[in-house]
Amino acid sequence: MRVLGVDPGLTRCGMGVVQGEIGRPLTMIDVNVLRTSSGEAVPIRLVTIEKGIDAWIDEYQPDAVAVERVFARSDVSTVMGTAQASGIAMVCAARRGIPVALHTPSEVKAAVSGSGRADKAQVGIMVAKLLRLDKPPKPADASDALALAITHIWRGGAQARIDAAVAKQKSAVAKQLARQKAGSK
Amino acid sequence: MRVLGVDPGLTRCGMGVVQGEIGRPLTMIDVNVLRTSSGEAVPIRLVTIEKGIDAWIDEYQPDAVAVERVFARSDVSTVMGTAQASGIAMVCAARRGIPVALHTPSEVKAAVSGSGRADKAQVGIMVAKLLRLDKPPKPADASDALALAITHIWRGGAQARIDAAVAKQKSAVAKQLARQKAGSK
Repeated sequence: MRVLGVDPGLTRCGMGVVQGEIGRPLTMIDVNVLRTSSGEAVPIRLVTIEKGIDAWIDEYQPDAVAVERVFARSDVSTVMGTAQASGIAMVCAARRGIPVALHTPSEVKAAVSGSGRADKAQVGIMVAKLLRLDKPPKPADASDALALAITHIWRGGAQARIDAAVAKQKSAVAKQLARQKAGSK
Repeated sequence: MRVLGVDPGLTRCGMGVVQGEIGRPLTMIDVNVLRTSSGEAVPIRLVTIEKGIDAWIDEYQPDAVAVERVFARSDVSTVMGTAQASGIAMVCAARRGIPVALHTPSEVKAAVSGSGRADKAQVGIMVAKLLRLDKPPKPADASDALALAITHIWRGGAQARIDAAVAKQKSAVAKQLARQKAGSK
């Protein structure tokens, strides 16, 4: 599966595309950081972000888009812009029918490094290791976007298997109930 | 001038179109509240909001879009969705080249009621009075969207005149300096 990870932000918006499956080596397809100037009006900056994400979705045709879940308790001065950029990323994917998943920073840190409290540097080192890169992608927004994509491949894949197992179980129970009902007639 | 006011929100997003000029009676063109279910995923809800705002911009061709400025200090449980919806409204306008203005709740209250601390009911009553409606539009999101549009017509118009005056003054000073420079040669 191919996943576009988006680390949303107004000033720097990380985008990373990773291809792979659980239990198999992962491959980085591309990584980039969209930048917009604080001297520009917010609506114009959001349009720049929209265009950048749209272009990558068109180019890389991801099976899913993973966006960092933004919390209201984050840094107040930037959280509004981050929330707006995350909304744009979600809409870019959802209006094409591409599934969107939100992962929290702790989930991402735990997935790639084994600890929900890993620092930026540790995340970067693990991303480089998992994607077999010479060094951590810079800036941190680039590493974070790739880490989101990796997290989604691992968690999303596991979640998909759980969902499939639950659906199978439900279907088996439904069939059994139907048989019992037919037998009692 | 015709202004689309947007009171952003994930569950209820108010939209109101008002036509008018400063010092002349204002006319309500249309008002509506987009609703999305909390049972749906946020990306899907944002797409619904995007489609609704896009449809109104296409239908009413506003000269400007006025969006409520969202603050991080607002209610934490809803502020992320509100910020995301406001980002969508901004992008819908900005990608068509329509100017976007943000007005704070206090600015809107002060503009329509004379007090930055007016309550929802007062705002509704003043909106009805200014637009010559029988009663305040319900729910409050509808009144708030219209109040945003009214605020923009009044403030935006004044701001445009100030900008024009400043530009004229600057141009006069520049011409004077150019003349002095020419004279000193």
